[in-house]
Amino acid sequence: MRPIPTANDIQLAHERIFPYIHNTPILTSEFINNLTGAHLFFKCENFQKTGSFKMRGASNAIFSVNSKKRINGFATHSSGNHAQAVSYACKTAGVGAYIVMPKNAPKVKVDAVKNYGGKILFCEPNERARQEACSKIIQQTNALFIPPFDDIKIITGQATCAKELIDADIGLDYLLTPVGGGGLASGTALSVKHFSPKTEVILGEPENVNDTYLSLEAGKIIPVTKTNTIADGLKTTVGKLNFEIIQKYVKEVIPVSEKEISYAMRMIWERMKIIIEPSCAVPFAALLSQKAFFKDKKVGIILTGGNVDMGNLPFE
Amino acid sequence: MRPIPTANDIQLAHERIFPYIHNTPILTSEFINNLTGAHLFFKCENFQKTGSFKMRGASNAIFSVNSKKRINGFATHSSGNHAQAVSYACKTAGVGAYIVMPKNAPKVKVDAVKNYGGKILFCEPNERARQEACSKIIQQTNALFIPPFDDIKIITGQATCAKELIDADIGLDYLLTPVGGGGLASGTALSVKHFSPKTEVILGEPENVNDTYLSLEAGKIIPVTKTNTIADGLKTTVGKLNFEIIQKYVKEVIPVSEKEISYAMRMIWERMKIIIEPSCAVPFAALLSQKAFFKDKKVGIILTGGNVDMGNLPFE
Repeated sequence: MRPIPTANDIQLAHERIFPYIHNTPILTSEFINNLTGAHLFFKCENFQKTGSFKMRGASNAIFSVNSKKRINGFATHSSGNHAQAVSYACKTAGVGAYIVMPKNAPKVKVDAVKNYGGKILFCEPNERARQEACSKIIQQTNALFIPPFDDIKIITGQATCAKELIDADIGLDYLLTPVGGGGLASGTALSVKHFSPKTEVILGEPENVNDTYLSLEAGKIIPVTKTNTIADGLKTTVGKLNFEIIQKYVKEVIPVSEKEISYAMRMIWERMKIIIEPSCAVPFAALLSQKAFFKDKKVGIILTGGNVDMGNLPFE
Repeated sequence: MRPIPTANDIQLAHERIFPYIHNTPILTSEFINNLTGAHLFFKCENFQKTGSFKMRGASNAIFSVNSKKRINGFATHSSGNHAQAVSYACKTAGVGAYIVMPKNAPKVKVDAVKNYGGKILFCEPNERARQEACSKIIQQTNALFIPPFDDIKIITGQATCAKELIDADIGLDYLLTPVGGGGLASGTALSVKHFSPKTEVILGEPENVNDTYLSLEAGKIIPVTKTNTIADGLKTTVGKLNFEIIQKYVKEVIPVSEKEISYAMRMIWERMKIIIEPSCAVPFAALLSQKAFFKDKKVGIILTGGNVDMGNLPFE
């Protein structure tokens, strides 16, 4: 196994990115607590700068590079939220951002990248096309590559979110996140291991794109073959380092249906009056599917982002 | 002019209802400040219990009546948010709530009233049908009537919202609310008069249902003739006592188009990641229509509620 972030790495990352991120609020809902029978603590990364937790990893990666070495800017590929975060952090750092996006990325995310000054290169919506386009732009510009999730700096940055939730001293029994590429999931697992070892980490995953679930069963990475989920941030195969950490430190993955995802999303919109994107309804949907298991427990849920295409909502 | 609430009345009302309401957060948005050139402070009554400021007036009216006199419960007519608030406050007080609702009220509001234990009687969507149905239910049950807005207890309760915003000591130049029946608008005007006399109150109103605008021009109440607005909480004619207070203490009413309302609503959803209903996008739409006027000013905006029918959104 490659080296994994230590407690000190996460602490240093948090100090490094603190000027560039929000310490997002932790919200509760009496209605949802009554409904579920659990005590839920929602860490609201939908209120994070650029509208998602991805700002943490991107800031950590960019501000870890000294100002002389980062002069040619940064490049990445992303379905959206990582792209926005890299664009914004590059703007703050005063360097260029080159973003490869799948051509079916939600319009609201494309617009936001443009708005933050990122230069977009569209590609076909598959992993190979993304990587090829990204390599090409790096050759042309000498920009540094920022991986979306399979990277120690990214994982360490994402870990700061769980750290803030743990620092609130709630005494969580469980901490839930969604899993896509696994940047947040693995970072969360490490923060919990280092700072709250009695808490257990459980992941929610769309059953239509359940590569992490299958990979844990198989003991090796099983790549995504379908991407038919409304959780547009969770369509990628779990990363290598991410999978190693998840394998070691995550209790289990709960798969949820598309219907469960849109139901959970709508409940948070209607009851908490906050906008969350489909991807981050996934762990809440997982909890709703296992109410008896979570009864009377203190459960943290990371609401990962709020960048939703209002012209294309999954409600009837 | 009938007696109007004093500073002491508002202070007492705030103490009375404090156990039953949230002191809602005041949010800001860097993006929206940059866009408008003003410094905006959003008082988030969408996070209030029952999802709107109406909880303040209803609680004040209900808990002003001693427990012996309120034994037969309370009755009201409302397009929705007042109905939810009365139902919830009655439940807390342990008495019955009889609610007359227009049969075209948003489903989410009807469901919420049922959920809070209110007994619903549907009527045709006009003022006369509402009042007749309400009189009938009061005869049958001996419930006490709680007017939706034209009432000193209601106005005093709604005034506590602006009081909390003023207590945050921002030094507001302007305070904006929507105007429908005028409960919040008149209460806000009184709190500003008593607690922050240098601040000026400006109202936003749909130009399709601009009775308050026309009434101020005419110097007398001009009843609503059309109700074709997405701002479903603002379809009623301004109340008598409300109008007297507005006439005396409000600087002006800014009319806004339906397109401006849905644009403003969408911007708050997309940028602030919070759910607001169309009615409460109206004062923000008013500000957007007069950017030059509000430039560099400190402006409070009361976001009045977040009860939205997700199956019926005004976005394309």
